[in-house]
Amino acid sequence: MKISDPHAVRLLERRLGGRRHALAEELEEIKDQLETLSFRDITGLVMRTSPVRGAKLLRLLPPERSAAVFDALNPAHQADIITAMGDERVVDYFGSIGAEDRVALLDHLPAEIADRLIRELDEGDQEVTNVVLGYAKGTVGRRMSPKVPVVTPSMTVDEVVATLRADVDRLETIYTIPVVDEDRRVCGVLRLRALFGAEGTDTVADVMEPPFVFRAGDDLEDSARWLLSSARLAAPVVDDDNRLLGILTYDEAHDVVEGANSEDSARMGGSEALRQPYLSTPVIRLVRSRIVWLLVLAVSAILTVKVLDVFEETLHKAVVLSLFIPLLTGTGGNTGNQAATTVTRALALNDVRKSDALKVMWRELRVGMTLGAVLGVLGFGIATAVFGLPIGTVMGATLFLICTISATVGGMMPIIAKAVGADPAVFSNPFISTFCDATGLIIYFFIAKAVLGI
Amino acid sequence: MKISDPHAVRLLERRLGGRRHALAEELEEIKDQLETLSFRDITGLVMRTSPVRGAKLLRLLPPERSAAVFDALNPAHQADIITAMGDERVVDYFGSIGAEDRVALLDHLPAEIADRLIRELDEGDQEVTNVVLGYAKGTVGRRMSPKVPVVTPSMTVDEVVATLRADVDRLETIYTIPVVDEDRRVCGVLRLRALFGAEGTDTVADVMEPPFVFRAGDDLEDSARWLLSSARLAAPVVDDDNRLLGILTYDEAHDVVEGANSEDSARMGGSEALRQPYLSTPVIRLVRSRIVWLLVLAVSAILTVKVLDVFEETLHKAVVLSLFIPLLTGTGGNTGNQAATTVTRALALNDVRKSDALKVMWRELRVGMTLGAVLGVLGFGIATAVFGLPIGTVMGATLFLICTISATVGGMMPIIAKAVGADPAVFSNPFISTFCDATGLIIYFFIAKAVLGI
Repeated sequence: MKISDPHAVRLLERRLGGRRHALAEELEEIKDQLETLSFRDITGLVMRTSPVRGAKLLRLLPPERSAAVFDALNPAHQADIITAMGDERVVDYFGSIGAEDRVALLDHLPAEIADRLIRELDEGDQEVTNVVLGYAKGTVGRRMSPKVPVVTPSMTVDEVVATLRADVDRLETIYTIPVVDEDRRVCGVLRLRALFGAEGTDTVADVMEPPFVFRAGDDLEDSARWLLSSARLAAPVVDDDNRLLGILTYDEAHDVVEGANSEDSARMGGSEALRQPYLSTPVIRLVRSRIVWLLVLAVSAILTVKVLDVFEETLHKAVVLSLFIPLLTGTGGNTGNQAATTVTRALALNDVRKSDALKVMWRELRVGMTLGAVLGVLGFGIATAVFGLPIGTVMGATLFLICTISATVGGMMPIIAKAVGADPAVFSNPFISTFCDATGLIIYFFIAKAVLGI
Repeated sequence: MKISDPHAVRLLERRLGGRRHALAEELEEIKDQLETLSFRDITGLVMRTSPVRGAKLLRLLPPERSAAVFDALNPAHQADIITAMGDERVVDYFGSIGAEDRVALLDHLPAEIADRLIRELDEGDQEVTNVVLGYAKGTVGRRMSPKVPVVTPSMTVDEVVATLRADVDRLETIYTIPVVDEDRRVCGVLRLRALFGAEGTDTVADVMEPPFVFRAGDDLEDSARWLLSSARLAAPVVDDDNRLLGILTYDEAHDVVEGANSEDSARMGGSEALRQPYLSTPVIRLVRSRIVWLLVLAVSAILTVKVLDVFEETLHKAVVLSLFIPLLTGTGGNTGNQAATTVTRALALNDVRKSDALKVMWRELRVGMTLGAVLGVLGFGIATAVFGLPIGTVMGATLFLICTISATVGGMMPIIAKAVGADPAVFSNPFISTFCDATGLIIYFFIAKAVLGI
């Protein structure tokens, strides 16, 4: 068994990083070294280098292995490699991956390359690909595999086994088998495991389970999460008349959820998801994924300049107030982000729904008041000791109010975003920071004016 | 087939929210309503209510269904329900779930309850549970299932099928079958699918694949992510002599990765993960998950007070400088968070490793300079128009430097955290905000003093 060899990988990595055009004998050497590496190491190597070098590596591998490594990459990265490659092997890769992976890849390719590749497919594959392409992005239909085994309730276990044996190479999965009636309506699901527990003469109707299906128009991310959390290997996909169209497998569902998690994580950090490994992404694409949000946030931060401008006179009279600006806005931002992150994740996992808005608000109000009480008392004590009672009072009261408001607003924001059809993650952390900054400053200066009498 | 009925769920939810002690006839009614709901709806209902109410709901369900719903909850939530329940049914639940799920649950239970439950298990289950309990938390051994099918290379396909048929009820999975030699060393893996494509008289050696194994001491999260991304259903777990110990299944791996993602997401937002659904978490536990980080961050924000204190004289001479404090610290924090979030996620997905530190630094430096150039030019233009050339110059230069430093530091911080053995997500966003606040202010005032000559 080939096991992972970090040293060999590093050596090869350094070698690849060298001159742009390697000599023929050097290529031979790299080829030999590649043969000593495990599948996992090679995949890692391709993921961590630029698309151009990745394409070179793939060319050096034996065809079958090369196609397997290609299959393990994510669609955006595959598209970059295809564009960098532009030779006949691309067509082989394209034919070797599943219909649902092919569609994901097509979504990332320039139109002319996509068209050419579809034309090169053999007729059966072309038809299957077009079926999947017919469903909208973000729906279950777009990621299902149409290559699904079909059995009827009256078949015996032995007959099912014979059918599967004949068809096994053609099928996406044999572990979950949809059972359909004469109109191709799904009436049950047969798990391969149940087949093993049954007698050869039992009928499918005896051992099948009630069906668990998705509709082709169902939301892809929700369905994928539910499939994974249900520990099922796959679920049949049906049309509105409950007729069988295909099957959604757990590994496809995993890719979808992984992508959605990366997107949520990126957006909570105020950027767009890269959709491909960090080290294989060109710097300019990293800039593009961040610049828009950074500009939007900087422009909204002009609000804080305006707020402070209004209170400039107060600041003149007591410059000491400006010392606490970053501390107060920071604390407000942190409290808001804690609440927003928690609720955004709960929404993604479907633990919280839009209709829970009031429950969430009531919880976050109580959490915010508790946090505010703790921080307020501490802030009052420390500030009084260092700057005297008036400043201590301002700090204590401001911290209490800022925590209360930030937690409540932070918790509600993702739900409001979802209600208006936006991505909860986009309207969360960075926006909340900006909102909390402005609100916090207003509270701060009103309290300061009242307490200090200026 | 029972399909999801949101209206019925809402009605029942409202009913459960009512009086603490329902009348007997009311319970009967709720019981009837529960019978009309799908498995998915009932699980959702339990997830979205308090542990005490969840326990009540489980008692109203028929035993088999009740155990299935219990199995679908996550371990921390299960532990709360067990504590809330305290009756004989708890023992049934405990016996009905898999050895690896049982260990996850034990980790969340008070010691005396855990001991009692282990004693109540039958002997075989007790033994299996203790094997898994013998491995450290965070290792593959802790989440493997010891109930694994075993075949040898010389067996024929027909013999394997007969063995599986006899044992199917006892096994965790039959889809991935470890092949072992006479010393119980793993020498291959047999996929059930390959079995279906083979002749009955073929031997296992003919159809098996090279093994893909984990060691019991391997890092659980890394292994789980790799298993899921490899689209394998399961992988054998071996000891240091390559002897078979158990199997890690994709659904166990999914639970692990889901938990790790929730933890990362929570920590990037500056709180600890809840490990259970938001709405079933008591408010006081929400406070606990946030208060420590909030205090740590507030205390480190005192640094910004100190920095401003040093420059108080400069602030006195030009109060206008204080107007831009939140805008500048906010932009620095956002730039740093963008980089940190991207790199933290890349580390989690293993796209980036510790040894890539210099590569990451070089990339983030270039990204930061590009972002800084764009924002700096804009900031210069706007500030010059409104506040005159000197302030414009200060803003432009400060924005450029802040973006450059924040992106570089933000990108490096998660890698440094990982290198010193800390969770990259903990040392990322909130800490970076605080660091960027302080650094940004120092840069700002030095530039201001130089340009304005004060």
